[in-house]
Amino acid sequence: MFFAISFTFLSEPYKKTLILWAKTKYMAQKVTIPKGTRDFTPLEMARRNYIFNTIQQVYELYGFQPIETPSMELLSTLMGKYGEEGDKLLFKILNSGDFAKKADEQHWEERNISKLTPQIAEKGLRYDLTVPFARFVVQNRNEIQFPFKRYQIQPVWRADRPQKGRYREFVQCDADVVGSNSLLHEAELVMIMDEVFTRLGINVTIKINSRKLLTAIADMVGKPELITAITVAIDKLDKIGLEKVQEELKQVGLSDDDIKKVTPIIELRGNNQEKIEAVAELFGGNEASEAGKNEIFKVFNYLESYELNNEVEFDLALARGLNYYTGCIFEVKAKDVAIGSICGGGRYDDLTGIFGLKDVSGVGISFGADRIYDVLMQLNQFPETTLQGPKIMFVNFGDKEAQYALKAAISLRNNGVSAEVYPDSVKMKKQMNYANTKHFPFVVLAGENEINNSTYTLKDMKTGEQSEVSLPELIEKLKNS
Amino acid sequence: MFFAISFTFLSEPYKKTLILWAKTKYMAQKVTIPKGTRDFTPLEMARRNYIFNTIQQVYELYGFQPIETPSMELLSTLMGKYGEEGDKLLFKILNSGDFAKKADEQHWEERNISKLTPQIAEKGLRYDLTVPFARFVVQNRNEIQFPFKRYQIQPVWRADRPQKGRYREFVQCDADVVGSNSLLHEAELVMIMDEVFTRLGINVTIKINSRKLLTAIADMVGKPELITAITVAIDKLDKIGLEKVQEELKQVGLSDDDIKKVTPIIELRGNNQEKIEAVAELFGGNEASEAGKNEIFKVFNYLESYELNNEVEFDLALARGLNYYTGCIFEVKAKDVAIGSICGGGRYDDLTGIFGLKDVSGVGISFGADRIYDVLMQLNQFPETTLQGPKIMFVNFGDKEAQYALKAAISLRNNGVSAEVYPDSVKMKKQMNYANTKHFPFVVLAGENEINNSTYTLKDMKTGEQSEVSLPELIEKLKNS
Repeated sequence: MFFAISFTFLSEPYKKTLILWAKTKYMAQKVTIPKGTRDFTPLEMARRNYIFNTIQQVYELYGFQPIETPSMELLSTLMGKYGEEGDKLLFKILNSGDFAKKADEQHWEERNISKLTPQIAEKGLRYDLTVPFARFVVQNRNEIQFPFKRYQIQPVWRADRPQKGRYREFVQCDADVVGSNSLLHEAELVMIMDEVFTRLGINVTIKINSRKLLTAIADMVGKPELITAITVAIDKLDKIGLEKVQEELKQVGLSDDDIKKVTPIIELRGNNQEKIEAVAELFGGNEASEAGKNEIFKVFNYLESYELNNEVEFDLALARGLNYYTGCIFEVKAKDVAIGSICGGGRYDDLTGIFGLKDVSGVGISFGADRIYDVLMQLNQFPETTLQGPKIMFVNFGDKEAQYALKAAISLRNNGVSAEVYPDSVKMKKQMNYANTKHFPFVVLAGENEINNSTYTLKDMKTGEQSEVSLPELIEKLKNS
Repeated sequence: MFFAISFTFLSEPYKKTLILWAKTKYMAQKVTIPKGTRDFTPLEMARRNYIFNTIQQVYELYGFQPIETPSMELLSTLMGKYGEEGDKLLFKILNSGDFAKKADEQHWEERNISKLTPQIAEKGLRYDLTVPFARFVVQNRNEIQFPFKRYQIQPVWRADRPQKGRYREFVQCDADVVGSNSLLHEAELVMIMDEVFTRLGINVTIKINSRKLLTAIADMVGKPELITAITVAIDKLDKIGLEKVQEELKQVGLSDDDIKKVTPIIELRGNNQEKIEAVAELFGGNEASEAGKNEIFKVFNYLESYELNNEVEFDLALARGLNYYTGCIFEVKAKDVAIGSICGGGRYDDLTGIFGLKDVSGVGISFGADRIYDVLMQLNQFPETTLQGPKIMFVNFGDKEAQYALKAAISLRNNGVSAEVYPDSVKMKKQMNYANTKHFPFVVLAGENEINNSTYTLKDMKTGEQSEVSLPELIEKLKNS
């Protein structure tokens, strides 16, 4: 709109010069943002806040309370917690001042970046909310009353290669309880997942399993060292089917006999009750399987008081977070949209051990807000109110009319109704265009006539209906709309 | 609480060994956060959110809509916008991968950090919300409907030396309108400041001046080049008094005659109306003073429809942001607490010019949330509800009782009441201690008797009163409390 100069009368070379001039003048500076990051417009903000607020409200209903941690953590806190690959994906912050001064002579000469990095950067941006939370718990352990139920909705940063749906800055929405082994928490987390997706209008399946049952499978075939390989294979059941899973199990080192034993477990069907009953039989009562079965049983037992809106499925083929989860694991999939998991979590028996505080068990979940956003867009499921701008705009017909409008706008605001007076008495078309783009549900037209009658002409932007109302009528109508 | 081992019976050397062991075991890793950053506990979060939500609600009442920009911006966007000192205070992010690879040979050898920095770091954390907003407007100018009224509540980062009340990560709360010259915005921003501090219960003085009147002072004495020095001196009036201001004016190059002319302006007293009228006379009608006077006049004119709760004072000695403000300037001071300004802003005629988009005027304000926090703490003015935890906790007397409690908790949550069942049937004292620390206003005790009567014994934690109620009564009572 800023280049709306008509220059059709110019010859080509002149045009080119003019365009170049404009580009140089207006584009002197590259105006863009780092790749993998995003700006959010008011509409996107409304939609995102709808998701965050829904999650937050449900967390709070269950007694979770918010905390926040700094965006920057010491690299000594972050490094080594996410594996070698994770360390590389940390955004590191250059030390202030003369960062090069203290760098080791030899490392500097060799440009040995793995040695130099900790010398020139002591801080990094947080990679997730779990490690900072563990650090928070250990650092504040004397002030914290356990069990500690916290939620945290904050951005995290990863120097991942950006791609569709994967960003370098994105918000995580975590809730965790630490300092209690009670399986009531697992049950309540299932209720939370059920409630959040019910409120958002997304049909989901909530899958639950116990890490202990995965251990039990490996134990049963006498190959506990293969637990990761076995579960990685089993985890693919949905994607590649039973036959290919069996092939993979063979490849990783299971005998035909082992596979025969494992198969009935991974293709176990029936309702949850039947599956729980079958577990004892299939595993022949090995220790890990008994513990796992009891966990699942207890969780379903707590859930009996709760009216589920979504399917909760005990799935022996569900595997995730093998490196840290030790008890129940959860995963949520949308039923009507093909997309990865949109929520997940589990119990980890030693969250704070990495910071030297042993024996603090925790259990938590995390909602994938960006994926949930995509699901809601695909399902066209965002409520209409997220599209709505402020309630009412007063058209500006001039100084006197603006003052008259302003009086009403002030009264409306005093009654909690968001209101705007268009700031300039420009052409009606431009003002209405503004009202449309900003999605005002109501517009007021008030000129000489209305001023004389002490009225306001109210236009419903959806129906197009107009009515002349007094100020008290206007307030009453807008307050209740 | 984790070191609560009684070892008074041990001799000194043993104690030392034990402490050392404990330190090594539990403190193997330094558990702290970068200096100048903060963790926020649930209580602090509740208080902070109370401030942010108040500001946000008022912004929205006036038709402002939220945007967010990435935490990281390209350093080319940030550098050179905050002066040389500001450039140093930017947190710079080390490029991912082999950051040293492309660094210039000679610069590397010389450890020339000013040359090396842009070669090894192309991104930085945002320093304020204004420059990213300007970048946002230019980048999205084709999608934006002007006038664009946005608010933005996000953290910013500065590598400043940390000190009391100054942090390296803190949240700014900005609202700006761009693309409109109407002074209605200035008036509405004053209303917003008045409304926010009224809602927060802080008595304030809102000061307003026009940058043009500061220009007029320098013009009047024929020394426009001294505008900065003159206004810096005038700005100190509150702190150092008239005599010292006059001394400073002399030092910076004003003659005795000049000072004679300037003095009646800076010590101008009376109500706003009188001051506005005096301006014309004092400046003898110079051009800048007429423009400035008209601005102030118009703003007060718009404010006539609005019932101010706080004092708005036209203050000819108010000077701020000389490098960028061009029209009205604002500043808010708390009346009952000695602290710097807690809100400020003004009009800048060329916000987006730095990114090559000319002639887009803007006006905005920013609330200092951390200072407001301190003021509310000092005034003991945070509402009691910010201290309140979830609504109700059910004491856990065992498996059966927990199930009974859970049913009620689920019903309460379905009615929008936040509820918790204590997860373990531990000692009553421990459970009540948890309830007290987390500030539950209500606790339920329900054992064998209550189960048999289908009742719940409800304890009001404030009054200590207990009553036996049915589930519907419990819900009714809690919903309305």
